[in-house]
Amino acid sequence: MKFEIVKIDVPKDCNVILGTAHFIKTVEDLYEALVNSVPNIKFGIGFCESSGPCLVRHEGNDEELRRLAAEKAFELSCGHSFIIFIKNAYPINVLDKIRKVPEVCTIYAATANPLQVILAETEQGRGIVGVVDGFKSKGIEKDEDIRARKEFLRKIGYKLG
Amino acid sequence: MKFEIVKIDVPKDCNVILGTAHFIKTVEDLYEALVNSVPNIKFGIGFCESSGPCLVRHEGNDEELRRLAAEKAFELSCGHSFIIFIKNAYPINVLDKIRKVPEVCTIYAATANPLQVILAETEQGRGIVGVVDGFKSKGIEKDEDIRARKEFLRKIGYKLG
Amino acid sequence: MKFEIVKIDVPKDCNVILGTAHFIKTVEDLYEALVNSVPNIKFGIGFCESSGPCLVRHEGNDEELRRLAAEKAFELSCGHSFIIFIKNAYPINVLDKIRKVPEVCTIYAATANPLQVILAETEQGRGIVGVVDGFKSKGIEKDEDIRARKEFLRKIGYKLG
Amino acid sequence: MKFEIVKIDVPKDCNVILGTAHFIKTVEDLYEALVNSVPNIKFGIGFCESSGPCLVRHEGNDEELRRLAAEKAFELSCGHSFIIFIKNAYPINVLDKIRKVPEVCTIYAATANPLQVILAETEQGRGIVGVVDGFKSKGIEKDEDIRARKEFLRKIGYKLG
Amino acid sequence: MKFEIVKIDVPKDCNVILGTAHFIKTVEDLYEALVNSVPNIKFGIGFCESSGPCLVRHEGNDEELRRLAAEKAFELSCGHSFIIFIKNAYPINVLDKIRKVPEVCTIYAATANPLQVILAETEQGRGIVGVVDGFKSKGIEKDEDIRARKEFLRKIGYKLG
Amino acid sequence: MKFEIVKIDVPKDCNVILGTAHFIKTVEDLYEALVNSVPNIKFGIGFCESSGPCLVRHEGNDEELRRLAAEKAFELSCGHSFIIFIKNAYPINVLDKIRKVPEVCTIYAATANPLQVILAETEQGRGIVGVVDGFKSKGIEKDEDIRARKEFLRKIGYKLG
Repeated sequence: MKFEIVKIDVPKDCNVILGTAHFIKTVEDLYEALVNSVPNIKFGIGFCESSGPCLVRHEGNDEELRRLAAEKAFELSCGHSFIIFIKNAYPINVLDKIRKVPEVCTIYAATANPLQVILAETEQGRGIVGVVDGFKSKGIEKDEDIRARKEFLRKIGYKLG
Repeated sequence: MKFEIVKIDVPKDCNVILGTAHFIKTVEDLYEALVNSVPNIKFGIGFCESSGPCLVRHEGNDEELRRLAAEKAFELSCGHSFIIFIKNAYPINVLDKIRKVPEVCTIYAATANPLQVILAETEQGRGIVGVVDGFKSKGIEKDEDIRARKEFLRKIGYKLG
Repeated sequence: MKFEIVKIDVPKDCNVILGTAHFIKTVEDLYEALVNSVPNIKFGIGFCESSGPCLVRHEGNDEELRRLAAEKAFELSCGHSFIIFIKNAYPINVLDKIRKVPEVCTIYAATANPLQVILAETEQGRGIVGVVDGFKSKGIEKDEDIRARKEFLRKIGYKLG
Repeated sequence: MKFEIVKIDVPKDCNVILGTAHFIKTVEDLYEALVNSVPNIKFGIGFCESSGPCLVRHEGNDEELRRLAAEKAFELSCGHSFIIFIKNAYPINVLDKIRKVPEVCTIYAATANPLQVILAETEQGRGIVGVVDGFKSKGIEKDEDIRARKEFLRKIGYKLG
Repeated sequence: MKFEIVKIDVPKDCNVILGTAHFIKTVEDLYEALVNSVPNIKFGIGFCESSGPCLVRHEGNDEELRRLAAEKAFELSCGHSFIIFIKNAYPINVLDKIRKVPEVCTIYAATANPLQVILAETEQGRGIVGVVDGFKSKGIEKDEDIRARKEFLRKIGYKLG
Repeated sequence: MKFEIVKIDVPKDCNVILGTAHFIKTVEDLYEALVNSVPNIKFGIGFCESSGPCLVRHEGNDEELRRLAAEKAFELSCGHSFIIFIKNAYPINVLDKIRKVPEVCTIYAATANPLQVILAETEQGRGIVGVVDGFKSKGIEKDEDIRARKEFLRKIGYKLG
């Protein structure tokens, strides 16, 4: 067994969601979950089928994001993993809808940060072991940071003051 | 810390589900979640208690699957992990019901593929690090593969045409 | 890439919950989810912001648990991970409410056991790879253990006889 | 405004589920939710579109149940209501999957009993006001009834003893 | 068909939850959902079985609340309805857990207010038509009321300022 | 007891959602659920507090929709009911997020149709009895209608062909 890192650079104004599911129907079900989430969402989905022809299955409503998701899923090549790139929407808009897709097992990351996916490869195949999502913590927030955080969340309307 | 691989061969016509939870009540709650899912489902559950007597707790309504689940859970010996073998039902029928069990943390895999569970062992105990679920991707599906996939899903009645 | 272990000793009468989410709003949303769960719950939350200032964000309604959660999150320094210490409540009371927080991705552990968090560190940052939750299994429960388990769960009122 | 009762006799070995949703996509989404629930489920769905052509939309994988659901939905003619007849499955197997369909508002009944649907009709249209599901209570269970109930649920394997 | 009102006075420091479900297992499943919700919760559950013996089924961990729930359920006598009285917990702590019980259809009210349940009675049986939960609105809140409401919610720790 | 109808005309390009909840925190929790749903959503919320001052509580991020929701909630004056007007989003985008708000009991309608809310008024207060959502069914769809429906849903991208 050896470990390997696949780096995912998220395109500008996009977010990436990485998880695992099972069964080729996953790509159609994820497609429907996403079109139900946000009226103008654009997205691409790649899913690693892991038996039979073992193809990367892909869907989407944006050709560029679909191509990117398929290529990145192939670079991962981890059985039953999926990767989604979204635009015009944020992960908080879609995560609950993705989680409800009946094939989905877990979600490893939802982020706009540079993402490193840590894989294990055996003679049989490959699997996700973890992710490095963005950067290492630099300190613990102090009272003034807390104040600034709260003000920011209320200013953008996510929280009420 | 050392890494180790436990191989799980899923019996014919069965699927395996691997996850983590906590508290010995998990086995009874998983039992009830599964009997509520599909009228004729057969299953066995093994759960690794990780304090006190540290026994593998097990339940089920099929003696053979119950024995298998208990033995495989013991082979894993990862604190608070559970393993379920199901027959007469598919993971899409049961995953949402398993996820709602109040002790469940995460689901690592739901599959009929050969499964390799990657563990870490320390002086304290053992934990799941990842899974290799089936085989490595062989390529990205092309237009004709997409067509065949869609036709197949509509032929078996999972999707409407 | 190197692996590292962070040890978490859960204070007496407390439980710890470890997971991943995204976005600094997570700490406020987790706060609200927890106050909605159990009337007298006491808790502290730490969350590793992983872009911009990369601070550990923290909230809570108990100063000691809040300080502990912030310090342990900083010790983890895994981008987008969160850690919660709870008192006067059990994980089964709160896990579903945590899972519904729109930023949450996955939950790695919910336990009162000693917990070892296995991390991977790269040049970019750090990520959770797995956990060792309590101790290795010592055997498979036998008929008398099953009987004792069922009696115990019925005696404490968690299950009906 | 006048009140009216529509009587629904559930066919042998079937159950009926009555609820409200919105949007014609409901029938396809309910179809998919039901095929995901139980491997051999048979069902028919009728849904009252309530704008434009105002047709009863219907789907299913059993011609007889589909015809029945369409006819009963038309007899109800309550805007945005749906009615489902299922065979080879019980409501406990499917209710959570129906509730997750993104168009569904509420579920009024899930039963094998004779069902009376109480409607209100105005100049504009019709709406469900309530249901009479089976028969009036005849008494409060006594200790021996409780014992018999618990034994029955444990004998059929729905609960563990 | 005639309409009738059943009045429910909620005991001091208690809340009542009224809904519909199906199948006698409901009382055991509601029991378990409630004991999983809040460590010291006290409750009584009554459920109107609506076929066969048509008994009010009841469970609980507080004799007085159990007796009250059984009697009020019998006063309602609406097929497949349930009524729950809770103490040491609030509806926000338990509603999601009740909704996940696989037999539950809908929830009509969760309140500490005086509650009037409007029923319809036919020759066949009885059904809930609606509830009057507390009192009629007296006006629309003004700026000073909004300010007071927000301050109150932040003072009791339910919302962050 | 007398019955009454309140008519709700949904503004152009808007949808209305009608339901019941409890506790004044509902308006803040619904606010947050809605801002988490769709990036550009505009909405107003009105909620009928039904004890103490019995004011209509309101929130929103669009003054006109907020005013409308408060006024319509006051016209309803049904204890613990809420009404939401949304723009730039559809009910399928938000219903699951509304249902997860811990105070919410049920959802009566989600529609762009003219809506009649049927109320019951007693000496104590008022309650929702049902809704007439749009218009009465005019017939059962035929093969050509089914074909047209499927084509439409696939053309707008909600379903895959």
